Amino acid sequence: MALIVQKYGGSSVADADSIKRVAKRIAEAKRAGDDVAVVVSAMGDTTDELIDLAQQVTPLPPSREMDILLTAGERISMSLLAMAISNLGVEAQSFTGQQAGVITDEVHGKARIIDVSPSRIRAALDAGAVAIVAGFQGVTQHTNDVTTLGRGGSDTTAVALAAALGADVCEIYTDVDGVFTADPRIVPSARKIDRISYDEMLEMAASGAKVLMLRCVEYARRYRVPVHVRSSFSSHTGTLVMDPEGAAVMEQPIISGVAHDRSEAKITIVDVPDVPGKAARIFEVVAASGANLDMIVQNVSVAATGRTDISFTLPADDGSIAIAALTEHQPDIGYTSLQYDDTIGKLSLIGAGMKSHPGVSARLFAALSNAGINIEMISTSEIRISVVTRADQLDDAVRVVHTAFELDSDEDQAVVYGGTGR
Amino acid sequence: MALIVQKYGGSSVADADSIKRVAKRIAEAKRAGDDVAVVVSAMGDTTDELIDLAQQVTPLPPSREMDILLTAGERISMSLLAMAISNLGVEAQSFTGQQAGVITDEVHGKARIIDVSPSRIRAALDAGAVAIVAGFQGVTQHTNDVTTLGRGGSDTTAVALAAALGADVCEIYTDVDGVFTADPRIVPSARKIDRISYDEMLEMAASGAKVLMLRCVEYARRYRVPVHVRSSFSSHTGTLVMDPEGAAVMEQPIISGVAHDRSEAKITIVDVPDVPGKAARIFEVVAASGANLDMIVQNVSVAATGRTDISFTLPADDGSIAIAALTEHQPDIGYTSLQYDDTIGKLSLIGAGMKSHPGVSARLFAALSNAGINIEMISTSEIRISVVTRADQLDDAVRVVHTAFELDSDEDQAVVYGGTGR
Repeated sequence: MALIVQKYGGSSVADADSIKRVAKRIAEAKRAGDDVAVVVSAMGDTTDELIDLAQQVTPLPPSREMDILLTAGERISMSLLAMAISNLGVEAQSFTGQQAGVITDEVHGKARIIDVSPSRIRAALDAGAVAIVAGFQGVTQHTNDVTTLGRGGSDTTAVALAAALGADVCEIYTDVDGVFTADPRIVPSARKIDRISYDEMLEMAASGAKVLMLRCVEYARRYRVPVHVRSSFSSHTGTLVMDPEGAAVMEQPIISGVAHDRSEAKITIVDVPDVPGKAARIFEVVAASGANLDMIVQNVSVAATGRTDISFTLPADDGSIAIAALTEHQPDIGYTSLQYDDTIGKLSLIGAGMKSHPGVSARLFAALSNAGINIEMISTSEIRISVVTRADQLDDAVRVVHTAFELDSDEDQAVVYGGTGR
Repeated sequence: MALIVQKYGGSSVADADSIKRVAKRIAEAKRAGDDVAVVVSAMGDTTDELIDLAQQVTPLPPSREMDILLTAGERISMSLLAMAISNLGVEAQSFTGQQAGVITDEVHGKARIIDVSPSRIRAALDAGAVAIVAGFQGVTQHTNDVTTLGRGGSDTTAVALAAALGADVCEIYTDVDGVFTADPRIVPSARKIDRISYDEMLEMAASGAKVLMLRCVEYARRYRVPVHVRSSFSSHTGTLVMDPEGAAVMEQPIISGVAHDRSEAKITIVDVPDVPGKAARIFEVVAASGANLDMIVQNVSVAATGRTDISFTLPADDGSIAIAALTEHQPDIGYTSLQYDDTIGKLSLIGAGMKSHPGVSARLFAALSNAGINIEMISTSEIRISVVTRADQLDDAVRVVHTAFELDSDEDQAVVYGGTGR
């Protein structure tokens, strides 16, 4: 008998029929003999509708009240789901974030989980019931105020609950079959990845793969929670995110997949005095503005002038605050001008062990070059190479790289680079 | 500086515009220097929509889950109202039933309030904020489960909170101007009652006046909470429900008003053996079925047969369970047949002190008789006379009685029977 935590997103519980379908799946898991706790998001568009109501009332809703408002969404979906399961003859009880013991800090709107004390969930499971838990919400430690966890909050709730319960697996149900070697909308021949390490999944999420949010993967990695990403519309096995099995596997030049990200912009600071401390000062200023930096490139200094250009990428949403901060500090930084470019795309090739296999970056650059795609910036980690291209060349870039690393599903060599068993 | 508890029903917060209008009224009360706590119901049709959703999922929703579902409604309205008040520059915080310290028993769907410990509300008021509290909901003492209070629950929440806070007044905002001497839709000349005692209001509510629910009046009476029933659409003074001022007033033959009720049915048990214990047995059987009895009439026994007829009224909704129970026990009760009649109406004349003024019932019966209206059953209390008529004669009955007791607003004598100062 296993203990399973399942998480269903808003699209899986969009209406009464979807809720009944999900209830059937949960009841089957319970009848198969496992203990089942379920984390659920708000139904379909509920959250957007509530935000719209708030906007009708005030342009600047206080964040504490906004959190109370939004958590009504999970209250509705969780109770309906519990009813639907009960209707199938399986006992089910729903629990708010507070009742489930999800304690957070006090940052309304994007609270962080401090602790999960799921004694009531444990008791419900021990009593033979399915426990339904509201995703995306918690309660502050001292004031008992309701908080929401922000983007990816329900996935994080599920992983945190699985960690606290010592669950055997956390199943994240979504509207796709799992994590793919590339976005199937761009690369129709993309393969579903059967198994991927936490580190690789972390790089995939950080590089734009949307199926799992970064913070959820971080949490799973920290507590070693096996995560199974799968479709709520089929019974196929999805993608298992977990520690690699045995060191031998790690020696293979595993290319897990190609992620892409269209949401970044590039800022170039032109003619910065090339003296120690300038770069530090620039990134101090940008960080203080609240913008999140991603890639950074400093060009070789032009000896004659003693000046250089510094480029970095950041979420396009953060562009205006970063530009404003840099403009304010032009006098003390001493640059000539700023260039802002939001027509870039980022491609990332991810694979554990690529560092110890020479030739991976050479093959990547050759593939892009043969396709006539110019590389504007490069950054690397142990298990990732990212390149910045023109936005309108990004789809082509993803396709040629996917093919170059023999990730296409009709290639026999697929197994070498990432087949079953990884 | 006074401490005021205000309660707004669903029709007062039906949409964003209504919420903004109510927020303005609350902000004005706060700016006038009073401490203000507000109890709010779910927006307009929200509760019905949630019930409909539950019905789509299962025909028999577990009551615990139903309570979690329905309480989402107040969560939405209370946070939106707090936002709207904040938007006017007045600090406001919303609180769930649990956060407001509303402790109930464990009867989901119609829980009773056991205690109110409003320390957080008190703290918010002391900090200068308006406290918005979810009506209709509480939390169980030991398991921390969410409960709803059933019909009239938000009014009861408001009165209970006012009692716990020692508020100077509990203002119940509704879509009418107050309590009237009769339903203005039936009697256009009905007058608004300026002031009414708890006992009279209790009889009015029990006799079908819908503006305040019986349990809310009971609670107010027990804790001597002055209740002001008024319109959220005007600034007129409404009806003040409180202890009568001075004994002298009580000596007047006060007729407060005429209530009516169309929701009852009459069951007649034909040919019951007229022996001791039979009536007791009948009402034991009916009570055990869960039906609520109202009026009971036993006809004079026919000496020749030693048998009699017993009639009683009850809510028509309880008719089928009572009939089923009586049918099951026909052998041991020994009656001949049952008659069921749901085309009756009940008229009640209410007024403190009517018992000590002879002629009130005579005047009532004469008015009905003159109008050709037959009386089928009669029951009386210290401050009420109720009669059962044909349902299709009820409106006429209310009008002629209202006129006979000079309650019409164009009568000069109005003041004698219930003008200002009662």
